[in-house]
Amino acid sequence: MEVINSFFDAKSVAVVGVSEDPGKLGSIVFNNMLDAGYKGKLYPINPKHEELYWHKCYANVSDIPEHVDLVVIVVPTKFVKDVIDDCGKKAVKAVIIITAGFKEIGGEGAKLEEEIMGIAKRYDMRIIGPNCLGIIVPDKGINASFAASTPKSGNVAFLSQSGAFCTAILDMAVPSNLGFSHFVSFGNKVDIDEIDILNGLMEDVQVDVLGMYLEESKYGQDLMKVVNESKKRKPVIVLKAGQSDEAKQAIVSHTGAVAGSAETFDTAMKQSGIIEAKSLRDLYNLMMGFSWIKSPKGKRIGIVTNAGGPGIVTTDLIVKNGLQMAKISDISGEKLKAVLPATASIHNPIDIIGDALADRYQVAIQTLGEDENVDIIMVVITPQLITQIEETSKIIINAMKVYKKPIIPVLLGDKYITPALSRFMDNKFAAFRDIKDAVDVITQMVKFSEYKNNQDYSLLNSRGKGKHKEVVGKYVGTGNALPDEVAALMAEEVGILLPNQMAVKTLDEAVEFAKDIYPIVIKASNKLIAHKTDFKAIYVNLKDESDLRASFTVLEQTIKEKTGLSEIEILVQEMVIADEQLFIGANRDGEDDVYSNHSKGFGHLMLFGQGGIYTEVYHDFAYAIVPASKAYLEEMLDKTNIVKILNGARGKDALPKDKFIDQIMAVQKLLVLYPEIKSMDINPLLINKDKVVSVDIKIFM
Amino acid sequence: MEVINSFFDAKSVAVVGVSEDPGKLGSIVFNNMLDAGYKGKLYPINPKHEELYWHKCYANVSDIPEHVDLVVIVVPTKFVKDVIDDCGKKAVKAVIIITAGFKEIGGEGAKLEEEIMGIAKRYDMRIIGPNCLGIIVPDKGINASFAASTPKSGNVAFLSQSGAFCTAILDMAVPSNLGFSHFVSFGNKVDIDEIDILNGLMEDVQVDVLGMYLEESKYGQDLMKVVNESKKRKPVIVLKAGQSDEAKQAIVSHTGAVAGSAETFDTAMKQSGIIEAKSLRDLYNLMMGFSWIKSPKGKRIGIVTNAGGPGIVTTDLIVKNGLQMAKISDISGEKLKAVLPATASIHNPIDIIGDALADRYQVAIQTLGEDENVDIIMVVITPQLITQIEETSKIIINAMKVYKKPIIPVLLGDKYITPALSRFMDNKFAAFRDIKDAVDVITQMVKFSEYKNNQDYSLLNSRGKGKHKEVVGKYVGTGNALPDEVAALMAEEVGILLPNQMAVKTLDEAVEFAKDIYPIVIKASNKLIAHKTDFKAIYVNLKDESDLRASFTVLEQTIKEKTGLSEIEILVQEMVIADEQLFIGANRDGEDDVYSNHSKGFGHLMLFGQGGIYTEVYHDFAYAIVPASKAYLEEMLDKTNIVKILNGARGKDALPKDKFIDQIMAVQKLLVLYPEIKSMDINPLLINKDKVVSVDIKIFM
Repeated sequence: MEVINSFFDAKSVAVVGVSEDPGKLGSIVFNNMLDAGYKGKLYPINPKHEELYWHKCYANVSDIPEHVDLVVIVVPTKFVKDVIDDCGKKAVKAVIIITAGFKEIGGEGAKLEEEIMGIAKRYDMRIIGPNCLGIIVPDKGINASFAASTPKSGNVAFLSQSGAFCTAILDMAVPSNLGFSHFVSFGNKVDIDEIDILNGLMEDVQVDVLGMYLEESKYGQDLMKVVNESKKRKPVIVLKAGQSDEAKQAIVSHTGAVAGSAETFDTAMKQSGIIEAKSLRDLYNLMMGFSWIKSPKGKRIGIVTNAGGPGIVTTDLIVKNGLQMAKISDISGEKLKAVLPATASIHNPIDIIGDALADRYQVAIQTLGEDENVDIIMVVITPQLITQIEETSKIIINAMKVYKKPIIPVLLGDKYITPALSRFMDNKFAAFRDIKDAVDVITQMVKFSEYKNNQDYSLLNSRGKGKHKEVVGKYVGTGNALPDEVAALMAEEVGILLPNQMAVKTLDEAVEFAKDIYPIVIKASNKLIAHKTDFKAIYVNLKDESDLRASFTVLEQTIKEKTGLSEIEILVQEMVIADEQLFIGANRDGEDDVYSNHSKGFGHLMLFGQGGIYTEVYHDFAYAIVPASKAYLEEMLDKTNIVKILNGARGKDALPKDKFIDQIMAVQKLLVLYPEIKSMDINPLLINKDKVVSVDIKIFM
Repeated sequence: MEVINSFFDAKSVAVVGVSEDPGKLGSIVFNNMLDAGYKGKLYPINPKHEELYWHKCYANVSDIPEHVDLVVIVVPTKFVKDVIDDCGKKAVKAVIIITAGFKEIGGEGAKLEEEIMGIAKRYDMRIIGPNCLGIIVPDKGINASFAASTPKSGNVAFLSQSGAFCTAILDMAVPSNLGFSHFVSFGNKVDIDEIDILNGLMEDVQVDVLGMYLEESKYGQDLMKVVNESKKRKPVIVLKAGQSDEAKQAIVSHTGAVAGSAETFDTAMKQSGIIEAKSLRDLYNLMMGFSWIKSPKGKRIGIVTNAGGPGIVTTDLIVKNGLQMAKISDISGEKLKAVLPATASIHNPIDIIGDALADRYQVAIQTLGEDENVDIIMVVITPQLITQIEETSKIIINAMKVYKKPIIPVLLGDKYITPALSRFMDNKFAAFRDIKDAVDVITQMVKFSEYKNNQDYSLLNSRGKGKHKEVVGKYVGTGNALPDEVAALMAEEVGILLPNQMAVKTLDEAVEFAKDIYPIVIKASNKLIAHKTDFKAIYVNLKDESDLRASFTVLEQTIKEKTGLSEIEILVQEMVIADEQLFIGANRDGEDDVYSNHSKGFGHLMLFGQGGIYTEVYHDFAYAIVPASKAYLEEMLDKTNIVKILNGARGKDALPKDKFIDQIMAVQKLLVLYPEIKSMDINPLLINKDKVVSVDIKIFM
C-alpha cells in the first residue's frame, strides 16, 4: 500500500520533459496536473528554462531542494536511463515513464528496458510504464497523463495495459458522468503491474468497482488470490485481449508481453469470480452498472413496459441468461387489475400498453417495488407518440431513491429518448439504450452477488513436499513421461487408485505376475509410446496363460518394429469392467514453483470429464485451476454432459460421482506436491457402480 | 404484387375516425399523411363534421363519390365491423385496422376478429392489422400511421409485428439518417403477413434490405421459399422473439399468436440464409450496414488503428467470428515501412500509433485499398490527444468513395468522436462506436455474400405420393408408432437400408427365420415399447438356436410382465457389427400437408448425428428442414463432433460418410412422400467401413 501511495497520493511531483511548446507531451502532462487542480508541489524539469507555466524550472530532478514523491518522465527514449539514474540519486521512490520505444519494439528497446529496471532496483525505486498514458487520481488533483481531460471523482478504478482504451473510456465518461477514483495506464508493466495496484485498491475505501484491460497477467496465482482474499469482495471486471493466435502475435509488438492460453485465463476468471467484459462497451456498462446500480438480493425480475414486443424480447434475454421472470404476487395482480386498462397485461412482463402516461408507470413500479416476489425491476420504454418521457424518467428516478431493489430503465430509440437518458446519468443512475446491454449487466451483478469462494488455499500447505521428489527430480525438464513404476508410487502417495499391475520386460515375468488376476490387459509401457491406440498396442480380456502367451509375443514384436528398440517394457494389468470411461488431465501454466509467492503463472489447469475413444471428439471437460475447492470441482463437473451418465440416465444405475471427485482431489494434491509436473493425463479412468480405477496414467515432466 | 400496391401505392386514402381534436389517434394519422406530403386524394371520415383539416369530410366511406384505394380505420373496437362492411360495399380492396382489442385480448376480441375477417373475405378485401401502428412509404408521401415522424426515403424495408419496435427504429433513424422504402406494422396479422409483403418487396427495385421483427411465422415453408426464390437475392434480417417458454406466454397476450419451436425457426433462418439479429441494436446496425456498406468480395480484413490494444481486441473478434486477418502483401509492407515511424507495426493489425495525424491514415488506407490481399478495411480510431478526428473522417469518406471494397470506421469513445460519427452518417456511410458491433455486421455481410441456395425444391415433386398411403392413413393422428412391418415397407420404398429381420409372435417362427442368419439380435417390437433400453429388452450376439431359445423365453416373459399383454411381438434381426452408432430423427412443424402451398408450418425438422447410448448425453446433431439440398446436409454434418470419427480419428479407418448422407436423403424422401408423419427416429443407425444399416426405426403418426 505504501508504494502505491507514492503514486496515488504524491505530495510533490516533478515532470521531466516540459518545454515552452504547450503542444509537446511533457507540457501537456504538466498542464494536466495544473488543470486537475493539484495542490501539492509541482516542478517542471528542463535545463533550458528558468521558469515554465508559472513554476520554477530545474535542470535535473536532483536539483530540486525538497523531497520529491513522484517523477513523471516524458523525454525521448535515449535520455530515460540518465533521468532514472538522477531520480535514484535523489531517492525518488515512484516514477512514471510515459516515453515509449522499449520492450514493445524488441531488440535494443528490450535491452534498454532491462537496464533501466536494473537501476531502479538498485535504488529501490518503483516504476509505472514505460509506454503508457500515465495516471489520474481525480480526488487528489493528480492528472499525471497526457489524456485529453480529467474525469470526475467517483468509485471506479480503471487500470489498462493500453493507453488508448484509457482515452476511449475517458471520452465515454464525460457525457455519461461516470466518476473514477483511479485511472492507471501501466503500459509495458516493467515493474508495477495489476497485482501491485489491486493489492492497494482492493482495500481502498474509495474504490467500489475495478475495471481492467489486460493483454496478459504474468502472476496468475497472485491475481486470483488478490481478488479472492480481499477483506471486502469487490467486482473486478476485465476486458481480456489476445484470445486468438493472431491477436497474441499483435500483443508482442504492442506491449512486448506474451499472452498465455485463453482457456487458462478464462478458467481463472470464472473460478475467482472476475467478471469478463465482452467488448469495450460491455466493460463500460459493467463499470457503470456496478458503480450506480443497487446490489440485487435475488434474480427474480419484474418487467414494466409500454410495449408488448420489447417485453417479450426482454423476457427471452432474461431466461437465456439464467435469470428468472418474477411471479408477481396475487395482491400485486389485483392492484394492477384495478388501475390498468383492460387491454393491459397484468402478468409479468407487465404491459401498460402504448397509450400509457407517466401515472401508469408510477402505479406499476410502485406495485413491483413493494412486491416481495420481485428482486429487480426493469422498465422498458418505447417512444410512442404520447409517451411522457420526461415525466416518466422523473418518476423512475424518485422510485430509484425510495426502493432498495435495483430499478433499471431501458429506453429504446435515440433522438426522443436522449434527454431522459441524460437525466438518469446526471443523477448517477444507470440507464440503457439496448435491452441486451441492460440484461447483460444485471446478469453479471446477480452472478457477483451469488459468488462463493471457489479457492481452497489450505491445499497449498503441502506444496513441493512430495515424498518421491528426488527420483522425480531426475526427469524435470526432459519433456518425457515418468516410468510407470514412478507414476504408480506417486499415485499411491496421494490416493489415485490403480488396478493391480506390473511393468515387465519378459514373458516369464508376465506369466508369473498374471497367474492370480485373470482376466488381464497387456499394453506397451508409457516409457515407449504416447498414444497407444495409434497402433494396436493393447490386448484386452486375456482369460488365461495361453491367451497371454499368444498376445504377448505379437505385442512384443509390434513394439520392437514400431520403436526400433531391442529391449521392451510391457504393462500387465488386471482387467476392470467399466460402465463408463472418464478422463482427468492437467497442464501447468507458469514456472516449476508456480504455487510459491510471486511465481509466474496461473498454476495447473485441470480438465476432467469424459474419457476413452470420445475424448477428442467431444472435449466434454470441466476446467479448474489448482487449488480449487471440492465444492467447485463438483459444481463444474455438474456442467459437463457426461454427468448425466454418472447421475444415472435412462434407467441405468447411477455411478459413484463422489469417488470420481475424490480422484480429482487426489490429482490436485499430486500437482501441489509436485508442482514441477508439466502435464499429466489419466485416460481412461474406469468407473463402475462399485469403484473407480485409473488404468492409464501419464505424467510428463 | 397488385394487392400490396393498393397499400403501398394508394392513389386515394380515407381515414376513418378523424376528429376536431388533433391529439386523437385518427387525427394524428390524418395529419401524418399531410405531413408526409401525400399527393393523392385524402378523405377524413366523421359524420359530425363538414370539413376537417382543410379537407371535405364524409360520414361514411361509402359516401365518397370517387373510388378509394386504401382505408385506414382508427375508431373504437366496437365500430370496426360496421366500417369494414361499409368499405366492402364501396369495393375498397385495402384496409388498415389500427384499432386494438381483438385476438390479443382473447375471447370476445378473437371472435370479433374472425367476424371481420369473414366480411373481408366476402368482399375480397385485404387487411393489415388490427392492433398495429400503420404503414409508411416515404417515397409516396404515405404515412398512414400514428408514428411521431416520417423517416427519410431509402432502400430499407422494415416490417414489424410490434408497433413499438417501429417507433424505436424510427427514433433511431432520425439522427443516423437511415432511409426507408417501406415501414409496415402488421400487428395481429389477421390477413396480410410477412409472406405477402415479402412477396411484393423482394422484387421491388427500391428495396435492397429487409428488416423484420417477428413473434412467429405461421407459413414457415412459404417464408423460406420467398427468401430463397426471389430473382435478386436480398438480405432479410430478423429479430425473432419468443425463444423461451416464458416469452411465448407473453406473445399470446401481445398479438395473440402462438410461437413454434425455437430450434425449428433457428434452423429455418440459417438454412434459408435469413440473418438473425440478436438485439434491437443489432437489427438496426445490420439494416444500416447492408444499406450503406459495400458488399465484401471476401473475408480477409486489414485493420488500421492508432492504438495497439483496440487492434488486438479487433483481431480477436475477427478470428472468433470466422473471418480472416489479411496477410498484407510484401509491396504494401514496404510502402508502409517507408512512411510510418519505426515504432509503428506494419503487420496486420497496422498500428500507426498514438501520435498519428490524418496523413498516416491516408497512407495506410490507400495501401490497403490497393492491396489485393485485403477484402475489407477496418479503421479503428481512439481519441488520443492529437488525433485529427475531423480530418481523418474526411479522408476515410474520400477513400470510401474511391475503393470498391468496404471500409468500416470504428470510433471509440463518445464526446470527442460524435461529430465525426455524424459526418459519416450524414454522408450515408456506416460507422460504429463499438468494435464488436462492427465485426458482427461485417460477419453477417460476408456470410450473406457466401450464401448458396441450401434448398432443393425438386424433392417436393413427389409430395404425398407414398405407395403405402392407404395403410399409413389408418394411423394418422393416433400418436402411435407404425408397426415394424409397415415401417419396413416404407423404408424399402425410399431406400432406407434395414438388416435382415422379421417380427415374430412365437419361438418357432423365430427359430425358423433365424436359421441362416446367426449371429442375431432379438428385441421387443416397436408396437410394444418406446425406449427399449429402459429395461433389458434387447439380447445381442445370439450365436445359435440354443442361445435364441434361452433368450427368447426370458424376453417373452419380461415383456409380458412389463406390458401386461398376453400376445407379444419380438423382432428377430441379423446382428451387424458397428464401428459407430448414428442417429436420424425428424419432427414435423405444421399441418399434415405442410409441403402444399400456403400450408401452415415449417415442415419436418430433421436431426442427424451421433446415436446409441450417448444420444441424449451429447445431443450431437445437425439440423435441417425438408427439403434441404444434399450439399447442405453434408455441410451441416461436417459441423457435428461425430464427423471426426466418420472422417477417421487417431489412426482408425474413415467410415462411409456418403452412405450416411444417402440415408438422410432417403429419410427426407420418406417425409415428403408421407408428410403426415408426425415424428420419427432411427436410433441406432449402425455404420462400419462397408455399410450402413438402420436397426431401429420408429415412425409416429
